[in-house]
Amino acid sequence: MSYQPPVRDHVFLMRDVLEIEKYSNLPAFAEVSFDLVEQILEGAAKFTSEVLAPLNSVGDKHGCVWSQDNTVKTPPGFKEAYKQLTEGGWTSLGSDPAYGGQGLPHVVNLAFSEMSSSANMAFSMYPGLAHGAYSAIHEGGSDEQKQLYLPKMVSGEWTGTMNLTEPHCGTDLGLLRTKAVPQADGTYRITGQKIWISAGEHDMADNIIHLVLARIEGAPAGVKGISLFIVPKYLPDADGNPGERNSLVCASLEEKMGIHGNATCVMAYDEAKGFLIGEENAGLKIMFVMMNEARLGVGMQGLAQGEAAYQAAAAFAKDRLQGRSLTGPKNPDGPADPIIVHPDVRRMLMESRAVLEGGRAFLFWTALHGDLSHGHPDEAVREKSGDYMGLMTPVLKGFLTDKGFDICSTAMQVHGGSGFTEHFPVSQYLRDCRIALIYEGTNGIQALDLVGRKLAAKGGRAVMSFFAEVDAYVADNAADTELKPFVDALAGAKAQLQEATLWLMQNGLQNPDNAGAASTDYLHLFGLTGLAYMWTLMARVAQGKIAAGDTDPFYATKLVLARCYMERILPDTAAHLAKLKTGSATLMSLPAEAF
Amino acid sequence: MSYQPPVRDHVFLMRDVLEIEKYSNLPAFAEVSFDLVEQILEGAAKFTSEVLAPLNSVGDKHGCVWSQDNTVKTPPGFKEAYKQLTEGGWTSLGSDPAYGGQGLPHVVNLAFSEMSSSANMAFSMYPGLAHGAYSAIHEGGSDEQKQLYLPKMVSGEWTGTMNLTEPHCGTDLGLLRTKAVPQADGTYRITGQKIWISAGEHDMADNIIHLVLARIEGAPAGVKGISLFIVPKYLPDADGNPGERNSLVCASLEEKMGIHGNATCVMAYDEAKGFLIGEENAGLKIMFVMMNEARLGVGMQGLAQGEAAYQAAAAFAKDRLQGRSLTGPKNPDGPADPIIVHPDVRRMLMESRAVLEGGRAFLFWTALHGDLSHGHPDEAVREKSGDYMGLMTPVLKGFLTDKGFDICSTAMQVHGGSGFTEHFPVSQYLRDCRIALIYEGTNGIQALDLVGRKLAAKGGRAVMSFFAEVDAYVADNAADTELKPFVDALAGAKAQLQEATLWLMQNGLQNPDNAGAASTDYLHLFGLTGLAYMWTLMARVAQGKIAAGDTDPFYATKLVLARCYMERILPDTAAHLAKLKTGSATLMSLPAEAF
Repeated sequence: MSYQPPVRDHVFLMRDVLEIEKYSNLPAFAEVSFDLVEQILEGAAKFTSEVLAPLNSVGDKHGCVWSQDNTVKTPPGFKEAYKQLTEGGWTSLGSDPAYGGQGLPHVVNLAFSEMSSSANMAFSMYPGLAHGAYSAIHEGGSDEQKQLYLPKMVSGEWTGTMNLTEPHCGTDLGLLRTKAVPQADGTYRITGQKIWISAGEHDMADNIIHLVLARIEGAPAGVKGISLFIVPKYLPDADGNPGERNSLVCASLEEKMGIHGNATCVMAYDEAKGFLIGEENAGLKIMFVMMNEARLGVGMQGLAQGEAAYQAAAAFAKDRLQGRSLTGPKNPDGPADPIIVHPDVRRMLMESRAVLEGGRAFLFWTALHGDLSHGHPDEAVREKSGDYMGLMTPVLKGFLTDKGFDICSTAMQVHGGSGFTEHFPVSQYLRDCRIALIYEGTNGIQALDLVGRKLAAKGGRAVMSFFAEVDAYVADNAADTELKPFVDALAGAKAQLQEATLWLMQNGLQNPDNAGAASTDYLHLFGLTGLAYMWTLMARVAQGKIAAGDTDPFYATKLVLARCYMERILPDTAAHLAKLKTGSATLMSLPAEAF
Repeated sequence: MSYQPPVRDHVFLMRDVLEIEKYSNLPAFAEVSFDLVEQILEGAAKFTSEVLAPLNSVGDKHGCVWSQDNTVKTPPGFKEAYKQLTEGGWTSLGSDPAYGGQGLPHVVNLAFSEMSSSANMAFSMYPGLAHGAYSAIHEGGSDEQKQLYLPKMVSGEWTGTMNLTEPHCGTDLGLLRTKAVPQADGTYRITGQKIWISAGEHDMADNIIHLVLARIEGAPAGVKGISLFIVPKYLPDADGNPGERNSLVCASLEEKMGIHGNATCVMAYDEAKGFLIGEENAGLKIMFVMMNEARLGVGMQGLAQGEAAYQAAAAFAKDRLQGRSLTGPKNPDGPADPIIVHPDVRRMLMESRAVLEGGRAFLFWTALHGDLSHGHPDEAVREKSGDYMGLMTPVLKGFLTDKGFDICSTAMQVHGGSGFTEHFPVSQYLRDCRIALIYEGTNGIQALDLVGRKLAAKGGRAVMSFFAEVDAYVADNAADTELKPFVDALAGAKAQLQEATLWLMQNGLQNPDNAGAASTDYLHLFGLTGLAYMWTLMARVAQGKIAAGDTDPFYATKLVLARCYMERILPDTAAHLAKLKTGSATLMSLPAEAF
């Protein structure tokens, strides 16, 4: 069975858990009825499962092909699918109506992105990167730049890229060497080599708008001397159409473990014409706007690959006949029982799903806060939602990609030997998923961003606000005996997260190495607690539906998965707390040569 | 830096921790002085790092090539390396001197196997499978069969395979269909298709001895009707040399995620001539002798890939300059500090190493019990050691492959984006390692073997014996204040394992689904406790050396790693205990269609 987009779960989250219909006073929500949202989701499901999913394996097997003339041919079918993507308006869902976008809520766009990424991650990165570049220009570009570039990026006629990394410089952008020489006409000549540029060259769009970080001659050293430039593959002519070819090329493609359908390019800029975005030496700030959006998207990719892999594993487990149930045959007329009768197989599937559905809820909940942070009329709500977006972005990126990869591996395990062969889809999901733990800032960098920046920002306002929200929820629901097991588990996790936060405040300030040593365990403790909150919210809705007489088995299943989460996933919080409280002394006590 | 075999650690384990020199009263140990063992290890290190390691990436990139004439060409260099392997006598280390083997202790052979597998897992599987086939014939073959086949398998002139799996039948061998028709001359005609046959066809040896499970016409259904046959590629002639070509072929090769250098074959037997090993319908018993040996070897493969990946990550972390230490520059004259200054990078490396070195100790400790179970003059020792071998085999297979894969993934994470490219070795380690969680019985099957068979065997004698040994060790060392943190941690883990064991005895008998649901968490709890024991043993030796004035930093490093294990790995025991005690109710409460 091929990938089936989880529209039912998306509807449940948006309508019943997040109740997005409440927000019709917000611009993005005002113009979409929930019926329309459902129609969009159904259309997205059809497009992604029928057009993108069948090309996933094609992309993996064919990969992208680079030629001596520096062109890149995408896998068979990608170009046609991209055309359908743009014609269907799927590139413009979440974009600004001022530039031809549909202006839908971020959370709706994210649901489409999840389906698209589950169906074909390598393909989805082309419009994904384009949307990142759109966001940076939208954030920092001049009106003229916006008018020139954004409409064609929104329509998908043009795509875009982010050029940060150089061979000697990945995480540490201060080491960046690509240089920009100012010209008399106000433009710049950009020279340097960038590596790992996803979607850097391809044959699907009329133009590619590269956003390039470079150092203007004479700029300060380190991160304070980095500027951001628009460097189009074809320089727009007077009519705004692709004109003269700029002097930049894709010098080669990277050989990678996965995402073979996406062109990961070495880009060579040789006095290419570039246009400054925003102020000189202030490029990183704009790039980080784009990066933060991208990070949430990468968390979603981890989830999306996990979801696709889970579905493949569940289908396999229902189909594969092997052995008998420990409690007597369940398929007595067949040669054996389907392996889903085995508790350990169910454990693998249900643990995966408990993380996936909790993770999706956390992602959507955060994306909704993104919408509220921009559009809510109440400044206090905007502030709180903005805080949450900042705080949860590294948590979601790190937690969901770590877990997504584990789930892909678990799905392979359910398949047994079949999973290791390339005849089944799960090897590709695992290989594709693996990059999500690395790009847009490795998960270690996410953890440092969380403990070093996001926690401390504004005196810890964001995390205190989250604790207060959970405390209030726990207090409000203390009397609900049905919900008690979930509320108690949530309260326990939150107490541990709070203890860890206090430990970090006391010990991380004293010695920053303690914060670094604790960071990854803290991030996971945070993610686990966030999902416990989501599962409690979902359990309450499901109980309410059942109490009201709704017999859709969807709700009974949700309750079982909520229990599974509390019983089999959440106990890890205590281990993370114990580990992080051991501090950095042992880790730092070996000299480098002992490694 | 390329792979460096951990000879120092091997020597430490064998000489100082396991004190194998004590066992010179055993036949296998009598003829090897420890000096000779060290020479063998040094020679093994040289051969594996200089000959096998350079071919690892070659094997991955070229793979094996199948031709229409059903031949398989191994990757460039493999054939020559195989010749060197046999000429160096490396195929015969652990084999019976009666057939030309060197009769070395199993634990010494395992050290060689680890190096060989770290250097080139795909290559090492050819002699590895041959040794498995050797063991089965050695266990169950007639004298005539042994004389005919074993010397050439020991010398490496011939290799061997294990043929179990069929398309519809992997774990559940009772479904096996390959048939054997008795002939007037006492031989059989074997017909059927076998899949996933590692090393099933290749160009490195003069003959391939296939061991094939098949059902003799009229045999009982299920596992009670399975017999084991020798089915040589070339039938030995009167002089014992390869003669007539038997009617079996490699019909195709499997496309896989990793181990590309090993030929994973679909084997087609078309009335091939086969020779029964042992009794009719008693083939599984012999196959399981071979399988148990293979399972320990697969646990070692998980460890070996983890070790190689760790080494690559450590070298990268010392070399890659990026960012500055949180506590001020450590490489002030350079553009940035090496990333090993960062606590989270050290955490990844040290946690990996704490598992690897503890895992290696547990593996060697168990292998030594294998030696004692065969050769010790005291029957009580033989019995206890045999119990341990049986009990620990599934633990080591499951735990070390799960952890080995995690370590490969962690090593990729240390590499950042470089790790995802195929220019660095870690993607191959990760992809190659992944099969070890699946073959020779998936890790789920190992967990079931542990809770369903090994725990209960002989009234739980094996596990009780292990608990008593740990209790005695804890009591004996209770007064050692230096060792106290380790002893206390060990005692805590053992108490949790005992509690879990009791829970299983009470709840697993009542309802076998509870045992199944608990099995994987129980296996991991067991593995963690076993490693805690090993780290306590190693810490005591290291402390003793330091107290005696030995200034080799090796010992100080061991103590730091022992602390790291107790602080950052062992806390997972409580989570496993909590999870397994939730039983099977939640897992079993969903109907199959809810998945």
